[in-house]
Amino acid sequence: MKIYKVDGTLVSTNRIAMMEHKPLLVVREKEGGTPMVAVDPIGCKEGDWVLCCGSSAARDATGVKGYPSDLTIVGIIDKWGDAADGNSSS
Amino acid sequence: MKIYKVDGTLVSTNRIAMMEHKPLLVVREKEGGTPMVAVDPIGCKEGDWVLCCGSSAARDATGVKGYPSDLTIVGIIDKWGDAADGNSSS
Amino acid sequence: MKIYKVDGTLVSTNRIAMMEHKPLLVVREKEGGTPMVAVDPIGCKEGDWVLCCGSSAARDATGVKGYPSDLTIVGIIDKWGDAADGNSSS
Amino acid sequence: MKIYKVDGTLVSTNRIAMMEHKPLLVVREKEGGTPMVAVDPIGCKEGDWVLCCGSSAARDATGVKGYPSDLTIVGIIDKWGDAADGNSSS
Amino acid sequence: MKIYKVDGTLVSTNRIAMMEHKPLLVVREKEGGTPMVAVDPIGCKEGDWVLCCGSSAARDATGVKGYPSDLTIVGIIDKWGDAADGNSSS
Repeated sequence: MKIYKVDGTLVSTNRIAMMEHKPLLVVREKEGGTPMVAVDPIGCKEGDWVLCCGSSAARDATGVKGYPSDLTIVGIIDKWGDAADGNSSS
Repeated sequence: MKIYKVDGTLVSTNRIAMMEHKPLLVVREKEGGTPMVAVDPIGCKEGDWVLCCGSSAARDATGVKGYPSDLTIVGIIDKWGDAADGNSSS
Repeated sequence: MKIYKVDGTLVSTNRIAMMEHKPLLVVREKEGGTPMVAVDPIGCKEGDWVLCCGSSAARDATGVKGYPSDLTIVGIIDKWGDAADGNSSS
Repeated sequence: MKIYKVDGTLVSTNRIAMMEHKPLLVVREKEGGTPMVAVDPIGCKEGDWVLCCGSSAARDATGVKGYPSDLTIVGIIDKWGDAADGNSSS
Repeated sequence: MKIYKVDGTLVSTNRIAMMEHKPLLVVREKEGGTPMVAVDPIGCKEGDWVLCCGSSAARDATGVKGYPSDLTIVGIIDKWGDAADGNSSS
C-alpha cells in the first residue's frame, strides 16, 4: 500500500454505470506530486493522510465486489513511524 | 485511477479478435508526456480530461467481461480540486 | 495499453512448458529504451509499431487462457494522432 | 518480489473492516526511499530486511483469502548475494 | 516480460508456508540496477540472462497454482536481437 494525502474531490458526472456514485478523491504522495484518484469508502476529508491499496485488491476493498477501481482508500492513518521526513500526520 | 487528457484516436485494423471494434484513444498525463492508449466505452472527444482505470479492473470496465484492456476510461472529469497546477479541466 | 516498436526476436529454448512455442519479440517504447519482451499472437515484423496489453489481461490476449504473459501484442498500429513526436508509424 | 527494510509500524484505527487487525509496517527499498506499507503475517521487527510480494499474489499471501493487500511480507531475509552494495542484511 | 541477469541466490528461512522451498534468485535489469527477487522453476545459474514474468501470471508460472509470486523466471535466454547495448547473452 502507499501513503497519500487527500487533496480534494473530483467530479465526474459522465461516468460508466459500474462506478455508481461512490466519492472519488484526488490524492498525492507529496506536495506537488502527481495527482491520483482514489475511491473513498470511508469518508475522508481534505488533508487526511490515507493508506491506499492498488492492484486487483482495490476492487473488493471498495465494498462492492468487482468494482472498477485500481486505487482505493483502505484506512486513515493515525500515525506512522517516520515523522522525520515531514510526511507523517500529527 | 489516473487523470489523462485525450490526445486523439489510434487506428489498428490488424488486432486480435477479442478487441472487437471498440474505440482506442491516445491519452497523456500531461503535454508531451508518454502516450498511453485507453479503451473508450463512453465516447470522449479530443481535449477531454478523463479518469482511467488500470490493472485487472480495466477489463470489466469496458463493459465486456474479460476484455483485453489494461487501461480503460471510466469517466469524463467535470472538475477537480487542483486548478492551480494547470491540469484541471474548465 | 502502451505503444512499442518491434526491435527483433528473442530465442529462449529452455522455457517453462506453459509458454509453448509462441513467438517472443523484443519491443521498446523508443529508440534505446528499455527492452521489453512481448508475446506475439498476430505475426509482427521488425519495425512495426504495436499496441501491447499488460496486467492480467495479457494472459488471455495470447489466445490461450491462462498463458503466462504479462505483456502481449494486441494490435499493429496503422496510425495514431501524434505524428509530431516522431513515434507514429507511417 | 522486492527487498525492503522495515522502518516502523503504522497505526490506522479507522480502516475498512476487511483489513481486520493485521499489523501494517512501513518499509523502504533504501534509506530515505519512498515509504511503502506492507501487511506483516510473519512478525518482523524494525531493521529486518524482508521480501515483499505485490500484485494479486499479495492478497492470499496474507493468509486470508481475498485480503485487500497489494504488498505483503512473505519472508525475512537471512542473506543475499550482493553484500557489496551495502543493502544486504548481516 | 522483462530481461534480467541472475545475480545470486537469496536465503529466507523464515518465510510463509505457501512459499514452500522453491529457490529464489536475485536478478537485475543491468549491472548495479535495483535487485529484484524471482522464483526459479527452471534451475538457472549466476550470470544467466533470463526472461521474467510479473503480474498475476507470475503465480501459475511457478508450476504451483496460486503460488505467492509477483516475479517468476519463465525462460533462459539463448539470444536476443539487440547485442549492441551490451546486455545480450552470448
